[in-house]
Amino acid sequence: MMDDKLKEACGVLGIYSNHEDPAISRTVYYGLYALQHRGQESAGIAVSSGKGINYYRGLGLVSEVFNEKILDSLSGHIAIGHVRYSTTGANTLNNAQPLVVKYRKGALAVAHNGNLVNADDIRRELEESGTVFQTTVDSEVIAFLIAREASGDLIKAVKGCMDRIRGSYALAIMTEDSLIGVRDPHGLRPLGLGRYNGSYIISSESCAFDTIGAEFVRDVEPGEIVIINRDGFRSVRYKGPARRSLCIFEFVYFARPDSTIDGVNVHTARWEAGRNLAVEHPADADLVIGVPDSGTVAAMGFAAASGIPLGFGLIKNRYIGRTFIQPSQRLRSLGVRLKLNALKDVIKGKRLVMVDDSIVRGTTSGQIVKMLKDAGAKEVHVRVSSPPIGFSCYFGIDTSTRRELIAASYTVDDIRKFIGADSLGYLSLEGLVKSTGLGADNFCTGCFSGDYPLQVPREGKKYLFEKC
Amino acid sequence: MMDDKLKEACGVLGIYSNHEDPAISRTVYYGLYALQHRGQESAGIAVSSGKGINYYRGLGLVSEVFNEKILDSLSGHIAIGHVRYSTTGANTLNNAQPLVVKYRKGALAVAHNGNLVNADDIRRELEESGTVFQTTVDSEVIAFLIAREASGDLIKAVKGCMDRIRGSYALAIMTEDSLIGVRDPHGLRPLGLGRYNGSYIISSESCAFDTIGAEFVRDVEPGEIVIINRDGFRSVRYKGPARRSLCIFEFVYFARPDSTIDGVNVHTARWEAGRNLAVEHPADADLVIGVPDSGTVAAMGFAAASGIPLGFGLIKNRYIGRTFIQPSQRLRSLGVRLKLNALKDVIKGKRLVMVDDSIVRGTTSGQIVKMLKDAGAKEVHVRVSSPPIGFSCYFGIDTSTRRELIAASYTVDDIRKFIGADSLGYLSLEGLVKSTGLGADNFCTGCFSGDYPLQVPREGKKYLFEKC
Amino acid sequence: MMDDKLKEACGVLGIYSNHEDPAISRTVYYGLYALQHRGQESAGIAVSSGKGINYYRGLGLVSEVFNEKILDSLSGHIAIGHVRYSTTGANTLNNAQPLVVKYRKGALAVAHNGNLVNADDIRRELEESGTVFQTTVDSEVIAFLIAREASGDLIKAVKGCMDRIRGSYALAIMTEDSLIGVRDPHGLRPLGLGRYNGSYIISSESCAFDTIGAEFVRDVEPGEIVIINRDGFRSVRYKGPARRSLCIFEFVYFARPDSTIDGVNVHTARWEAGRNLAVEHPADADLVIGVPDSGTVAAMGFAAASGIPLGFGLIKNRYIGRTFIQPSQRLRSLGVRLKLNALKDVIKGKRLVMVDDSIVRGTTSGQIVKMLKDAGAKEVHVRVSSPPIGFSCYFGIDTSTRRELIAASYTVDDIRKFIGADSLGYLSLEGLVKSTGLGADNFCTGCFSGDYPLQVPREGKKYLFEKC
Amino acid sequence: MMDDKLKEACGVLGIYSNHEDPAISRTVYYGLYALQHRGQESAGIAVSSGKGINYYRGLGLVSEVFNEKILDSLSGHIAIGHVRYSTTGANTLNNAQPLVVKYRKGALAVAHNGNLVNADDIRRELEESGTVFQTTVDSEVIAFLIAREASGDLIKAVKGCMDRIRGSYALAIMTEDSLIGVRDPHGLRPLGLGRYNGSYIISSESCAFDTIGAEFVRDVEPGEIVIINRDGFRSVRYKGPARRSLCIFEFVYFARPDSTIDGVNVHTARWEAGRNLAVEHPADADLVIGVPDSGTVAAMGFAAASGIPLGFGLIKNRYIGRTFIQPSQRLRSLGVRLKLNALKDVIKGKRLVMVDDSIVRGTTSGQIVKMLKDAGAKEVHVRVSSPPIGFSCYFGIDTSTRRELIAASYTVDDIRKFIGADSLGYLSLEGLVKSTGLGADNFCTGCFSGDYPLQVPREGKKYLFEKC
Repeated sequence: MMDDKLKEACGVLGIYSNHEDPAISRTVYYGLYALQHRGQESAGIAVSSGKGINYYRGLGLVSEVFNEKILDSLSGHIAIGHVRYSTTGANTLNNAQPLVVKYRKGALAVAHNGNLVNADDIRRELEESGTVFQTTVDSEVIAFLIAREASGDLIKAVKGCMDRIRGSYALAIMTEDSLIGVRDPHGLRPLGLGRYNGSYIISSESCAFDTIGAEFVRDVEPGEIVIINRDGFRSVRYKGPARRSLCIFEFVYFARPDSTIDGVNVHTARWEAGRNLAVEHPADADLVIGVPDSGTVAAMGFAAASGIPLGFGLIKNRYIGRTFIQPSQRLRSLGVRLKLNALKDVIKGKRLVMVDDSIVRGTTSGQIVKMLKDAGAKEVHVRVSSPPIGFSCYFGIDTSTRRELIAASYTVDDIRKFIGADSLGYLSLEGLVKSTGLGADNFCTGCFSGDYPLQVPREGKKYLFEKC
Repeated sequence: MMDDKLKEACGVLGIYSNHEDPAISRTVYYGLYALQHRGQESAGIAVSSGKGINYYRGLGLVSEVFNEKILDSLSGHIAIGHVRYSTTGANTLNNAQPLVVKYRKGALAVAHNGNLVNADDIRRELEESGTVFQTTVDSEVIAFLIAREASGDLIKAVKGCMDRIRGSYALAIMTEDSLIGVRDPHGLRPLGLGRYNGSYIISSESCAFDTIGAEFVRDVEPGEIVIINRDGFRSVRYKGPARRSLCIFEFVYFARPDSTIDGVNVHTARWEAGRNLAVEHPADADLVIGVPDSGTVAAMGFAAASGIPLGFGLIKNRYIGRTFIQPSQRLRSLGVRLKLNALKDVIKGKRLVMVDDSIVRGTTSGQIVKMLKDAGAKEVHVRVSSPPIGFSCYFGIDTSTRRELIAASYTVDDIRKFIGADSLGYLSLEGLVKSTGLGADNFCTGCFSGDYPLQVPREGKKYLFEKC
Repeated sequence: MMDDKLKEACGVLGIYSNHEDPAISRTVYYGLYALQHRGQESAGIAVSSGKGINYYRGLGLVSEVFNEKILDSLSGHIAIGHVRYSTTGANTLNNAQPLVVKYRKGALAVAHNGNLVNADDIRRELEESGTVFQTTVDSEVIAFLIAREASGDLIKAVKGCMDRIRGSYALAIMTEDSLIGVRDPHGLRPLGLGRYNGSYIISSESCAFDTIGAEFVRDVEPGEIVIINRDGFRSVRYKGPARRSLCIFEFVYFARPDSTIDGVNVHTARWEAGRNLAVEHPADADLVIGVPDSGTVAAMGFAAASGIPLGFGLIKNRYIGRTFIQPSQRLRSLGVRLKLNALKDVIKGKRLVMVDDSIVRGTTSGQIVKMLKDAGAKEVHVRVSSPPIGFSCYFGIDTSTRRELIAASYTVDDIRKFIGADSLGYLSLEGLVKSTGLGADNFCTGCFSGDYPLQVPREGKKYLFEKC
Repeated sequence: MMDDKLKEACGVLGIYSNHEDPAISRTVYYGLYALQHRGQESAGIAVSSGKGINYYRGLGLVSEVFNEKILDSLSGHIAIGHVRYSTTGANTLNNAQPLVVKYRKGALAVAHNGNLVNADDIRRELEESGTVFQTTVDSEVIAFLIAREASGDLIKAVKGCMDRIRGSYALAIMTEDSLIGVRDPHGLRPLGLGRYNGSYIISSESCAFDTIGAEFVRDVEPGEIVIINRDGFRSVRYKGPARRSLCIFEFVYFARPDSTIDGVNVHTARWEAGRNLAVEHPADADLVIGVPDSGTVAAMGFAAASGIPLGFGLIKNRYIGRTFIQPSQRLRSLGVRLKLNALKDVIKGKRLVMVDDSIVRGTTSGQIVKMLKDAGAKEVHVRVSSPPIGFSCYFGIDTSTRRELIAASYTVDDIRKFIGADSLGYLSLEGLVKSTGLGADNFCTGCFSGDYPLQVPREGKKYLFEKC
């Protein structure tokens, strides 16, 4: 109720150490903590000691799932970790990742960020040939496809799996002796490669490298498979290149500003989006304020480009815990006020530009506009640093059903009236793309344009977002 | 440290109701509570509503794992449950039962009491053909063998599974529309059939029928498959009869005295064992006392046969919880005293017969003898209502390794000296068998005789007791 | 619903060690565990290191409240502990004991078993003179009365407190340098003295001495104050002797059979009560069975005196946890069956004597009689090893209101009909007293006779049982 | 380790409703949530229904302590709440607030923000006259002083209490029929008055009014007592005015920017402090960045005044939970990196002004400077928007001992070298005072100047910060 954002699906991380490292699970712990914004529902770490894989998964934040005793019990020289956003349910824990399986060649652990569009078809086929599933996550399909490769050639197995699956995937895979990173041929979800203590690390975002003191090397390329084991580092290309299609929403909202993805710094892209927004939709106003935290950077860019001073007009309460009690009917009117408060002394009598990164269902924007006006704002000009979201995502983002997307059914002016703004301007798709410094052919812009890099299921298919 | 008993592996239960029954999970809850003595480490219930299977499993006692909210969420018309004894570990929860899988025909849940001796071989074979496992329990092997049967004929699938697996198994299996009970061809582990509310119930022991108000009908026969669904009750025979070999230890210690298994009442068998023990190993004594709770019934039989009065010489503390702190080095001498206390006024100056059901490692018997002597007993004549345990069990009982079995390495007289008794007498195997009223060819007596109903793995094989 | 017993109020324990003893809190832990039957709702331990008192209290069993970390944090050379039965409520934890206060002379901890009949009057008086209370337990009144003595003479302070309070109390009191045991002038509640590791220990029951390896020395006398500190052991008499009035129900039900109180062994008294019962109310029957656990010993005495064989006719489930879900409306008929089961093979066709220790509201006896008849008993002759309970207790036992006591309103024959027994016999008060080997003038028999050792409040006063 | 800030002691809140209000505890819950920044260690709510006071307190965040069931059980028409920062310990829960006591006039609840400097003296005196204490919090002293007033005149009792206590206190007091707000004669800690649903509310900070939809009316004045009950609102003045001395650190760090205290908006004061800092300590630099979150506002003021552009140079991880595992020896070097990360693309090659609100021990500033330089900053000019902290606080702030305050022992240039900054400038005390728009005689500036509004204990006295 208090949040109107798209939900990221997952974050993955993997570390290979040349030596047995008793601190490896702690290092993954801190790395996952840096990726926590990508998923707060469950967390897990799997460790290989060279002889079998040990793992632990739980519901909640990284700091809630693990304690010293658990981390101490996870010792080895390879480790992968996962944080997950997902709908809850009695058996959610069963769907937590990494998924660990035993197969003919030993043990295998898989952590996945993304969404397969043909997982159900593959499941059905595998079931027809006698396969049995215990979870509903895509990772299980991936693990099964890799495990059934008879030859034991891991690269061949991964490639064989890639032949079958369609959709988005950034994978951290661990066998008892190797760490493998895989990025789907379109590169829909990010995956970075770093150096750590003389060996290698992979992570959904580069911010995790900074947190644990690793050095960012480069992005894993779309369609690239990287393998790290005692023979060192190897990179293998999955066949012919596909259209590169990184999810552009990583720059709009998902990724942390201190990450760099496919050569583009997230903070810079957001600042530039704010700049471009000021050019496309100027406003005659006294003060620019960002909706914290996601609108903060774009607001700075907007202020810089427009020459209108930047102000700190909204403060956000940081203390909502997992068990925070939502207001009951009687107190429903409190709404977004529990999370945000307007600084009257800053706002009073001012004509404001209120910058946010996106509007999904439109449920909170109106409440914020009203809060600002109640606090004395003379005018509120809403500026959004991305285009209207009119289409569902099939590649790992929870856009719910299309009917819930306000821009799928309403014009910009209808939305303006609905949220009570004096004016409303969305950044154009061209403007958004330009803010990244790359060409449009580098991105998936499906949620804005309806133009997807690969064929998507019919709208309304049930399984749209039960995967990670 | 305070317990020197063999550990039972599991208890299973299944209920089929002709109608949607909102109380079905509560009924299973009370039934599992009656089977709690068969496993205190984890508990689980799976329910079918006709469209999919819902389940919940947790670590601890039945009363710790479930609450009203969880039970309310488990509604349907078929339900199976499981209680489990097992070694602990970070991922124990993953191995909890019932195991629930999805396969081509829908969902399948399996609850298993017993131990397969060829599970590893089957795993390896299945892995060779591409199968992937996520747990280390035998139930997963069983579920996979059933699920891979292509025709969808459930009976055929179960029989196909039975063709492959060797060992002990009492199974409660549930598909979305049927409840199936299976007992291995040797009938190594018990399984009873009852009537409940106009339909059927299966349970490891008949005591669960009494607790929930069901009526005991008969034992499921060795090699019998019973299927209950909307077409009613059906019994199918797995091919030709094997040697019937019920685990005789069910009568010695595992089963509850109020259960009746294969026509033999457990209490009666224990009383008769006490009687026979008095005949085989009479003692010149003033008082017979039982070691609570397992020696109580045999002590009564011993007293009745010997004419020596029965006394209440040892009291047991009932309040040890799961987190009870074991004495540290400094207080180690407390030992069995934390659990048992001698009644001095009863014992002082008496020559005692102390009756216990079995001696495994011999660690506590000596402490009890000493406690009795400290309390003033003039003599302590230990009588054991079963033979020396000299061999490992491969069919669902945790006998640890053979080296830990005191009777595998020492003579009766050595044991007598070791425990400080004035005399020591074990019931003979003939005496034990006779106490059941059946012939020796009805039982597996492997742990006493080393004579097993089917071929067992070489001693020392690692996987001996990682299954349920 | 499944239990028809009077509830004991509390157990107390105190240890003085001549040296700093890092294991002192563990020793108290095991001692409280031996007293657990006296109270299962909360537990607490307070420790003095000579400089201040440290403590921990929690809701639940001793094994649930404490863990290694907490016990390790409670180090010192004196310690007292408490287990409590009480009604629950949001702030129950606040009422847990020992109560620890800071006053002019330092810190003081009080653990109390009993009930003051004039606590409210004292509270009111103290409040009038400006005192402020934070709990509703009598211990707070006791601590305040001791603390306000100006001179700092501890003995004088305790005596001054005893001048004011009326009712039952066995107290373990600890200052920073002394352990004090106090028993009220009537000796209503038990308190024993033991030797432990060269120093002293006090405990509500002697069974705790056995558990931790201490040696029982003697009972603390009614009106006696014992002080143990660096000057050794001292005993002081509160003025002139009152009528000695130990609660006779300790022998009927509360105390553990392995305890000895005021020179009488509990087991022996129960056995004799069974004997006397057989003489007073013989029965023409085939088998004597006890209702476990409380009727077991008296049943043995009955069998011995009557010559009728003893049988094991009812089995009790041991696994009810704190969160056990009571049957809802739909399953209410399960009732006592969840806790007890009849052994059909033992009972069938027999005329039974069913021995229980007491009948309070009469709610379960009828269910047990029915269960036995359903199991095939031809006749059930109920024998109760104590007299009808017709009056409330004001000295630490929860008898609820008098209206709930079945014997307060019905004749023995009415009760017989109500529970469906073929005959019903209660032991006479004379018979009960005789079973202890002491004269009637040694006991409070108020709940049976209405004759109390000191004046009691009018029936129905609200505060009857809110104290410990 | 990762935080170098002074710790606020507490927040208090009280609501009076003219009618029984089932949602009153929820409203307090949301109000406390808005005050959560003032204390994260424990939280409590006490409610009066007119007949007795009910309460609940626990360790942790407001959202962790309370659940729907607990809030539903706290119904009434008056409520007070408390959040607390404190050192931890086994018995911390005992010291949680509100403190609830029973005394001659009924029940009394007290919630306190502040610290009494003569609490120990009063305790000793009260103890001499026989008083007994159960906690170590000042609130207990306050409750006792109020409760002992014989006449029952509440105003007289509060005034009598104020005659005795010296130090800082903002109090929310509740009897069964009245809500009382008290602010000490110096007004050291803030307390605001608001209108809510036709009645009144008091709160440590006005931000809580916004969150729950109340209207800010005015500050409670130093030495003012406000009473709200069925007779309406009354304000009483404690005798002659003292020197007004609001803690100036509320503007530096403690209070939320959206609060207004004693007529000064916190955000505005911080912005002005940044402005004044730019004037006092200009820097030749390319970019101004704030250390989040506390340095953000001052950085904006600095940028505005200096004309140097504002940048977003440091990002803060929001997901540290209560059980977050601190790095062990092996990973200690991670330090502040777990919490903050530098945005390389923003910083690289730039000469930075890094604005923070204060430096206490100086442990993290050096790490942040190094992080910025590692990220490519050419120069780092540290600017602090308050003066050096050279003296302990005795009025409710945890400054630890004076020895830990870096500015108590080192010169500004030593500190500059220690933290590795290219230049270091602290705002002058005059500059800080000027930023509030009020005169210096309105504030306690003791931690900066050593000049306290009332006599303070000798440095090193143990009890310095065990109170709230």
